Formats: sequence, structure tokens, C-alpha cells
Amino acid sequence: MTLIDGKATAATIKAEIKAEVEQIVAAGGKRPHLAAVLVGHDGGSETYVRNKVLACEACGFRSSLIRYEDTITEAELLDCVKQLNEDADVDGFIVQLPLPKHISEQKVIEAIDYRKDVDGFHPINVGRMAIGLPCYISATPKGILELLRRYNIETSGKKCVVLGRSNIVGKPMAQLMMQKQYGDATVTVCHSRSQSLREECLAADIIIAAIGRPGFLTADMVKPGAVVIDVGTTRVPDATRPKGFRLSGDVDFDNVAPLCSYITPVPGGVGPMTICMLMLNTLAAGKHEYYQ
Amino acid sequence: MTLIDGKATAATIKAEIKAEVEQIVAAGGKRPHLAAVLVGHDGGSETYVRNKVLACEACGFRSSLIRYEDTITEAELLDCVKQLNEDADVDGFIVQLPLPKHISEQKVIEAIDYRKDVDGFHPINVGRMAIGLPCYISATPKGILELLRRYNIETSGKKCVVLGRSNIVGKPMAQLMMQKQYGDATVTVCHSRSQSLREECLAADIIIAAIGRPGFLTADMVKPGAVVIDVGTTRVPDATRPKGFRLSGDVDFDNVAPLCSYITPVPGGVGPMTICMLMLNTLAAGKHEYYQ
Repeated sequence: MTLIDGKATAATIKAEIKAEVEQIVAAGGKRPHLAAVLVGHDGGSETYVRNKVLACEACGFRSSLIRYEDTITEAELLDCVKQLNEDADVDGFIVQLPLPKHISEQKVIEAIDYRKDVDGFHPINVGRMAIGLPCYISATPKGILELLRRYNIETSGKKCVVLGRSNIVGKPMAQLMMQKQYGDATVTVCHSRSQSLREECLAADIIIAAIGRPGFLTADMVKPGAVVIDVGTTRVPDATRPKGFRLSGDVDFDNVAPLCSYITPVPGGVGPMTICMLMLNTLAAGKHEYYQ
Repeated sequence: MTLIDGKATAATIKAEIKAEVEQIVAAGGKRPHLAAVLVGHDGGSETYVRNKVLACEACGFRSSLIRYEDTITEAELLDCVKQLNEDADVDGFIVQLPLPKHISEQKVIEAIDYRKDVDGFHPINVGRMAIGLPCYISATPKGILELLRRYNIETSGKKCVVLGRSNIVGKPMAQLMMQKQYGDATVTVCHSRSQSLREECLAADIIIAAIGRPGFLTADMVKPGAVVIDVGTTRVPDATRPKGFRLSGDVDFDNVAPLCSYITPVPGGVGPMTICMLMLNTLAAGKHEYYQ
């Protein structure tokens, strides 16, 4: 069994990005600039945005953090998006989700210029991804593809089961895994209503669990030699931890891991790759790789 | 075994559309107007466009046919698209594919105002469909959903295998079948590289064949009681037919049909529904159902 080390892989990729950025800057090019908009003081969002800013530093990017209280109106936030769209120095930007209830997340996402949408959430990027055109691919599925690629895990023609059908992970993951130029796999998407979920998992060569239920995937659902990718990051109360919780994956790791050819841990698997892929998207934005 | 009658279902829907259009017009509303752009003289395209114009008449729509020789330049065609985008009387329009080699189909599709894109091919509509937002859904997958719905075929939680991963049928079909508000099924997409294609089909409650290989799905791949939807329409030379060819589906119909609970014939199954769904999309365009 090989443990897939997302932390080390992410560090390698960030070093690669930094090297490329320094080359670009040395050649007289522009240093990529990521802006992040944070509304309110949600603990999780604070952590994510802080880590994104730190990752920008590690990659040699310029970063800007724009903060608003959660009393900001939708119109004010949309105005901020408009300014970022028009700011020629900003190559890409994100609006950290979730937003307060009085603001339509979908409206904000659609207001972002798709050419700066490094989260890959704008319908144009979602649609281009679905039909195989160059675009920003959202960070979590992109990070999983990158892990599979860097560990030389064969996916073409294999049976891949995706557990979960969220817009952010399950659906785009399935779309990427089925496409010839990405996973080229036989892809099955299972969810809460699936009657054949157990049989699907047992037949799978690759399982990508993104269902958000701690320990959901148990050893009796996994074929020996399978590759297991755990996207779950549920906060489970744990008084022994300094923060009072620990992160739990969707996989019963201790019992599943011995069966696997490859498996990602939680934490340290998919998680570190996610921010790293945001950095790759920002680099692509700086280089105008997908759009002029 | 129940034969799914696409021709009769399409006729029913067109009558429903016509009734609604006459109500709209009687109430002082605008008669929906579909424009079709046809480049060159491809036999298949001529037939499709003629049938679309006839369907418009059956539905009480206004229709316009704009013809160009296949010597038209890309710039000229893009200019035509721009004019149609700006023509307030045109509610929706299509550019019949395929286009001559010297014109980028993707560029033309992306030039169409997504609010008039009744084919549902623009990345914005593809993306909105993928994340479950209101939008134009492309005609063939939409027609299949409608057949399943009108025949009261249970899909929620069932295992649905989609054969083929084309941008026009396989991929959107899979995306719709997996979504809670549409199929809510456990969806597997198989294709030319799938190692487990036969096992997937044998376990399927619903098989949607869109692989473009005549007679590909044989009786030994189908579970008794399965629902089989045949999207194939390959022209097979046949000297006994007036046109010198017949349409062949992807299913070995004579041997598969006796096993099925429901099956679509070719022709007369999915085919007639496709143009009918274009009419439904045009009605939605006229009513500004998805976009202002």
C-alpha cells in the first residue's frame, strides 16, 4: 500500500510554480496577482483565506485580501467584483464562500469575469470543462487528477466510482474522469439515493469519496488493490485536540488502507492539493493560458 | 414489453405547444419565432432543417430560414449570428451543424447569445445545466428525459448506463440522469475504452445507447426487465430502400426487445422527440422562461 502524500506533492508543485514565476519576472513579465474577497468572520473561511495568502507568498505571487463585514449588501459586493474585473493588475480573484444568507452566491459567481475566475465556478468555465475546452478547472477535482498523474496511477478504461454529486467536487470530478484527455475512465456517480452503491464500490478500481459522511466507506466495500481518494473533511468534535475538533475523511482509513494499492490520508491528502491548484490556476491566469 | 412511441409522444407535445401558443397570441402575446441558419447543401442537414421548419408550423411558431452557400466566410457567418442576436423579433435560433471545415463551429456556437441558444450548445447553457440551474437543455437528452417521464419510468436510485460520451448526447445525458431534479439515478458512462462495459450493461436497469455503432448492444448484455433507449441513427446502405439507406440504431432490436420492460425503436423513438424538444426550448425562449 502506498500512501499518497498530498502535502509533499503540493510543496513540490508550489516550488515549480515559484521557479516559473521568477523566470517570468526575470524576463520582464508580470508577477501573477491573486485577490481574495472575504466577507464576515467565519472561522473556516478565515483559515482558508489565510492559507491562500500564504500559498501566494510561497509561489512568488502578489496577493490582495479585501475584507468586508457581513453587513455588506449584495450590491456593494457586486460592485467590488466589478472593480476587480476591471483592475488590470489583478489576474485572478476569488470570493470566499459561503456568503451571508442575504447575498446570492450564484449572482456573485456569475458577476465574476470568467477570464479571472480562478475558482472555476462560473458557468462558462463549468461548461467549457464539461465539453473539454481549455478553462479554469475547480481546485479539488483538479488536485485529484494531479495526484493520480504524479503517482502514475493508470485510469484509462478503469472503473472509477465517485461518491457524491456536489457541484464543487462530485460532478466535475466525474466529468473529468470520463473525458479522454483527463481520466478516460468508466465513471459511475453514486449518491444518497443509489440502490447499488455497495456493489458499485466493490467493483471499482478507483473510488473517490466526496460524500461528507465520516468513515462512510468501509473495508467491506473496497476491492483489494483499489485506489481510494478521500475528499471528506468533516469536523468531528474531539476534546483531545487543541481546536476541539479533528478532520475526518469519508473513509474508514484504518481498515480500508491495508486493502488499497494507493490511498490518500485525511488530513494531508487531497486538502493541501486544493489550494495548490488555485495557485496553478492563478499562474495560468497571469500567463493568459486559457483566455486572452 | 412496451414499445416507447416517440412519434406519438412528439405529436402530443407539439399539440400541447400549439395550444399554449394560441393562448399566448389570443392574450395579446408574441408568437414565438425560431430562426435557422443553414450553410451549404448537406443532405442530412437539409432534411433536419426542413423538419424543424415543419415542426414550427405544427406548433404555431413563426420560423425563418437563412441560407448560405458553403463558400460563406467565418466572418460573414459570425455577422449573421450577431444580427440574429440583436433582432428583437427572433426569440431563438440555431446554426445547423456540421459547418464547412473552414469555419470554427465552436466560435460560432460561442457567438450566439446564450439567451437565444435554443440548441443549448453554448458553454453557459452547458455549465448551467451541469450545476442544475434553469437553462436550455440540448434536445436529444431533454427528449429522452421527457420520454422516461411520460412513460412513468422510475429512474430515482436506479442504475443507468450511458453508452458514449459525446458532448451532444452522452455527457449531458449522464449529467441530467444523475441530478436530483431530473433522473436522480446512479449513472455510469461507458465508452470505447471501458474495460467493464459488458458487466456495467448487464447490471443496468436503464441503458441509453449513444455510441453510434449499429447493433452494438446485444441481448447477452441486457438484464431481463431493463429499459433500453436507443439514440443511434447510423445510415446503413440498403438497396431495398428508396433513399438507398436505412437508419440503424445502436441496439440489436429484434433480440434485445423481448428482454426489455420498455424499449425505443429506431426510427420512431428518440428521433422525433429531438426536434420536438427544440420546439419546447423555442417556446421557453418566447416566454423568457429561463432568461430575461
